[in-house]
Amino acid sequence: MTVWITRVDPVEPATGPLHGLTMALKDNIDLAGVPTTAGDPRNDQPAEHNAFVVDRLVEAGAVPLGKTNLDQYATGLVGTRSPYGACHSVFSELHVSGGSSSGSAVAVATGAVDFALGTDTAGSGRVPAAFNALVGIKPSRGLVSAQGVMPACRSLDCVTVMARTVGTARKVLDVMATFDPDDAWSRRASDLPRGRSTRTPGAAAVIGVPDLPLELDPLHEQAWQETLDQAHRLGEVVKVDVRPLLEAAELLYSGPWLAERWLAFGDKMVDDPAVDPTVRTIVRNGAGLTAAEAFAGFDRLATLARASESLWAQLDALLLPVTSTHPTLAAVAADPIGVNSQLGRFTNMVNLLDLCAVAFPGPARADGLPFGIQLLAPAGHDNVVIDLAAVWCGEPTRSSEVLLAVAG
Amino acid sequence: MTVWITRVDPVEPATGPLHGLTMALKDNIDLAGVPTTAGDPRNDQPAEHNAFVVDRLVEAGAVPLGKTNLDQYATGLVGTRSPYGACHSVFSELHVSGGSSSGSAVAVATGAVDFALGTDTAGSGRVPAAFNALVGIKPSRGLVSAQGVMPACRSLDCVTVMARTVGTARKVLDVMATFDPDDAWSRRASDLPRGRSTRTPGAAAVIGVPDLPLELDPLHEQAWQETLDQAHRLGEVVKVDVRPLLEAAELLYSGPWLAERWLAFGDKMVDDPAVDPTVRTIVRNGAGLTAAEAFAGFDRLATLARASESLWAQLDALLLPVTSTHPTLAAVAADPIGVNSQLGRFTNMVNLLDLCAVAFPGPARADGLPFGIQLLAPAGHDNVVIDLAAVWCGEPTRSSEVLLAVAG
Repeated sequence: MTVWITRVDPVEPATGPLHGLTMALKDNIDLAGVPTTAGDPRNDQPAEHNAFVVDRLVEAGAVPLGKTNLDQYATGLVGTRSPYGACHSVFSELHVSGGSSSGSAVAVATGAVDFALGTDTAGSGRVPAAFNALVGIKPSRGLVSAQGVMPACRSLDCVTVMARTVGTARKVLDVMATFDPDDAWSRRASDLPRGRSTRTPGAAAVIGVPDLPLELDPLHEQAWQETLDQAHRLGEVVKVDVRPLLEAAELLYSGPWLAERWLAFGDKMVDDPAVDPTVRTIVRNGAGLTAAEAFAGFDRLATLARASESLWAQLDALLLPVTSTHPTLAAVAADPIGVNSQLGRFTNMVNLLDLCAVAFPGPARADGLPFGIQLLAPAGHDNVVIDLAAVWCGEPTRSSEVLLAVAG
Repeated sequence: MTVWITRVDPVEPATGPLHGLTMALKDNIDLAGVPTTAGDPRNDQPAEHNAFVVDRLVEAGAVPLGKTNLDQYATGLVGTRSPYGACHSVFSELHVSGGSSSGSAVAVATGAVDFALGTDTAGSGRVPAAFNALVGIKPSRGLVSAQGVMPACRSLDCVTVMARTVGTARKVLDVMATFDPDDAWSRRASDLPRGRSTRTPGAAAVIGVPDLPLELDPLHEQAWQETLDQAHRLGEVVKVDVRPLLEAAELLYSGPWLAERWLAFGDKMVDDPAVDPTVRTIVRNGAGLTAAEAFAGFDRLATLARASESLWAQLDALLLPVTSTHPTLAAVAADPIGVNSQLGRFTNMVNLLDLCAVAFPGPARADGLPFGIQLLAPAGHDNVVIDLAAVWCGEPTRSSEVLLAVAG
């Protein structure tokens, strides 16, 4: 499989907190001197500058080793929509790697790099993490600059990090989360919405789990039940109504946001062998949407966000599977749009509802494939979900308030 | 002129902070038992319930006296776009009342009521206040519920209050600003963006004024220069670059938001004598906008919001005229779209950029017409701009921190 689209020679690392850590960059993130293809070989002009976040990471001592394969224009959750070829999970040649940050996930999972950057609009940083037993942090929207990142949905895109441990991913995020005044969608951490005001200092974390069956495939379901059995490790577990979240997830592709992709790269969606036909089919649907439909979608989203507020008032984090299944390459080839859209059921809503998330490995499935789980919380609570993921993974926490009772 | 579309018999007032104050309601705000025409007589079915905010005001002792004329579907800043007839300023039969909350302003200015509700998407609560020498508070977006208010641009609409004094308007706002969980666009005051963190407690307020000529008509210009001469009454005056704000103001009608009006009431915009032809012409333009154009507009707005951030970091409030001129009814009739769009130059951007504002009388023009000025600040700073307006008007303040040095 093609993990790398471009490789570069390692440079001498700078002194800094990431000194000598090697990194892979999803090929929609600019690295000066090499093309940013976004999975479309027609994009062959070298980038003039590093993306803002790449500059930060290099300054902190990280060493780029190259640019990785992806679902073209970051449109997909499978890792098969690329003229450079499909990626498979490191656990199975028959099963997809997940996408769109497919090559980045495989590069980390095989040990080729210490960490990798992806992007996550619908789940593109969490789904490939889940299918390769990695940690994937999807930071709060705007916490990481997207300057020098080719947009998919500019208002939703997030640069993410994948690593083999929570600790490495967090260390990288610390460097990435630098306010960029030149990115209009960048947000200062201090400007993010305020937290849950009702929690009692020192109390155990409250972890929500869905109060309805999730319709997972049987192997996923078994792993999910094991996860629920172990969820008390994170804190007090309460059942909550996640239907507004699941409905919001459907909005991402039934609502207006396809038009944002069309705005970003619709001009590329011509009949050409360099264009992935599935990506073309999907994104062309964005051309016909009206602005009135867009506003109707925003109004529906506002209603769903309001409906989900009571849930967040009760919880420190919500625990969900990352996906409902782990499809084979063959299943995706047979139904490229249908299978993909199933994969986003638990991830698509996270940016729409202004949440942050961390994906990490749950109990493996009975067939040995990994099973990814995720913790979600409102934007600004990145440290809470990261600390909880660390607890699950048996790694050190930053002993933020929410975890005193759990870790103590 | 037609100030009232429907009058109702006064009820016995409830006990409360507004006991016995009479109020007029713009006829896009539901009052149970009478139609909400929005200036279109075809909307003749009585409303079943009071708007959320009307219930709050009646509970607090206010007494509704009826529903007032408006630019149809709240689309206009002139007060002439109504099949019920045009309104003129109480200061001149030749000059427009301003709109779209035209009848509400006239009802207050003539003393027919103590206060009136309007709505303000582009300036509809501030322009008629300016043209009738009233105080008009345009609260932070979402601070007042819009449940039971006919939408113009649902994501931007704000219910406003007009009164003859800052004190009355503020007392009404105190009651109006009640969080409504059933309005998806309603926001808790505590969830509004945080304030300027750099100000020194007890220091004089910092008031921004534009560093460029504003191209006002000569009578307005003279009154504006007098305003600038007196601005030190509010605090330390600094010149700032307002170009990002003026460009954002142009976006309201050149950008995607016309489509939101089309979504709200486009189905009414048929060729019918009940439909104002200017409103029809404008709103029909919203039908042809694409969702991709909408996202391009949001991206441009995000860029302008970022560009204006440095301005707010320096200021407690920005002082601007409300309008650049006060047109005659004849001038509006001769060029109904062009004259109207000029009126929004200093008001259109306020909701787009998530600001709050108070309009209040500045020095009268040499011809005796009123000259309205306004103070703007980021959402959540309603009390700051209201207190500063009170200082200007020689009324008591709430002695919020920002005013200690000014009022002391």
